[in-house]
Amino acid sequence: MYSAVIEELIEKFERLPGIGHKSAERIAFYILERMSAEEAEHMAGSIIKAKKSIRLCECCQNLTDQSPCPVCSSPKRDKKLICVVESPEDVSAIENTHEYNGLYHVLHGALSPMDGIGPDDIKINELLLRLADNEVEEVILATNPTVNGTATAVYISKLLAPFDVKVTRIAHGIPIGSDIEYADKITIVKALESRQLM
Amino acid sequence: MYSAVIEELIEKFERLPGIGHKSAERIAFYILERMSAEEAEHMAGSIIKAKKSIRLCECCQNLTDQSPCPVCSSPKRDKKLICVVESPEDVSAIENTHEYNGLYHVLHGALSPMDGIGPDDIKINELLLRLADNEVEEVILATNPTVNGTATAVYISKLLAPFDVKVTRIAHGIPIGSDIEYADKITIVKALESRQLM
Repeated sequence: MYSAVIEELIEKFERLPGIGHKSAERIAFYILERMSAEEAEHMAGSIIKAKKSIRLCECCQNLTDQSPCPVCSSPKRDKKLICVVESPEDVSAIENTHEYNGLYHVLHGALSPMDGIGPDDIKINELLLRLADNEVEEVILATNPTVNGTATAVYISKLLAPFDVKVTRIAHGIPIGSDIEYADKITIVKALESRQLM
Repeated sequence: MYSAVIEELIEKFERLPGIGHKSAERIAFYILERMSAEEAEHMAGSIIKAKKSIRLCECCQNLTDQSPCPVCSSPKRDKKLICVVESPEDVSAIENTHEYNGLYHVLHGALSPMDGIGPDDIKINELLLRLADNEVEEVILATNPTVNGTATAVYISKLLAPFDVKVTRIAHGIPIGSDIEYADKITIVKALESRQLM
């Protein structure tokens, strides 16, 4: 129906997460009809450039174009605190709060026996190496509150037991600004269990 | 927060239609984390290639990499019939039905005095030129049933009056499979007005 090159362009966009066939078509036509040749070239260039220059920070394993990354090399960050997350997007979400001043450790996934993802498939060893040389006082486990994320947090907390480090888990409960009425049962149970003295 | 190259990549995707900041982030990380360098290069290459090779069909003005386009040059299509649409996406929607066998004419927009889009800004002259040399018997106006689309259909139908050609408008009414109960008022009014003998 379309020319082969248009079909190919649509198909490429269709493979991206959250983009269905209809959106891919819309994007392809936008590129063909609305973008200047220069803009399209810049877009293609950004993909190539990012892909070539981005690697993992030798320290926190976050995506970066300079290693150690800006967070790890900042003198302003509290090096006694490491927040362990599953993905670079999680780092971004926490950084957006502007309230956390420690370092991060990106696991790039969570343990998932069903999918054959074991401890060696995510960046757990790299975390242990960071603790080996010392100044860390607390590790906050901020993996997702899913079955896999929770299992990963439990697994890591056991691994960290021999180290002289405090291991904490990010709190789970009713989200701020929402209605208890609309919270799901598990969240309510968790929120009741984790209740704190006022 | 992110490296400059990641920020740039996110920003580029954010400019595409239907993609917000969050989706752009997700796509950028997908490209960086999940795609192979080869896949990313193919994606960038598709953008450049499509942008370079796609132009407008000299006949129907649809996007194509060969002019005349496959539809215009097909001996199987009924050259007595031209369906006038606003965009290449509309051609695609009609082709997907596999029920239309005539040719198309893509206007690349609709008249919109509010936005300063007049008859010379869309492919109306190109349509008149196609009628000049004759075998066309019917022009179906399939612009959108919006204020601008309707105005464009009315304008074109007036322009075509001197030509010996039948001018029709695609039907508007209750969509098949939907409930009259949920149809909007204007659609119901239109459907009643356009009622046909059974």
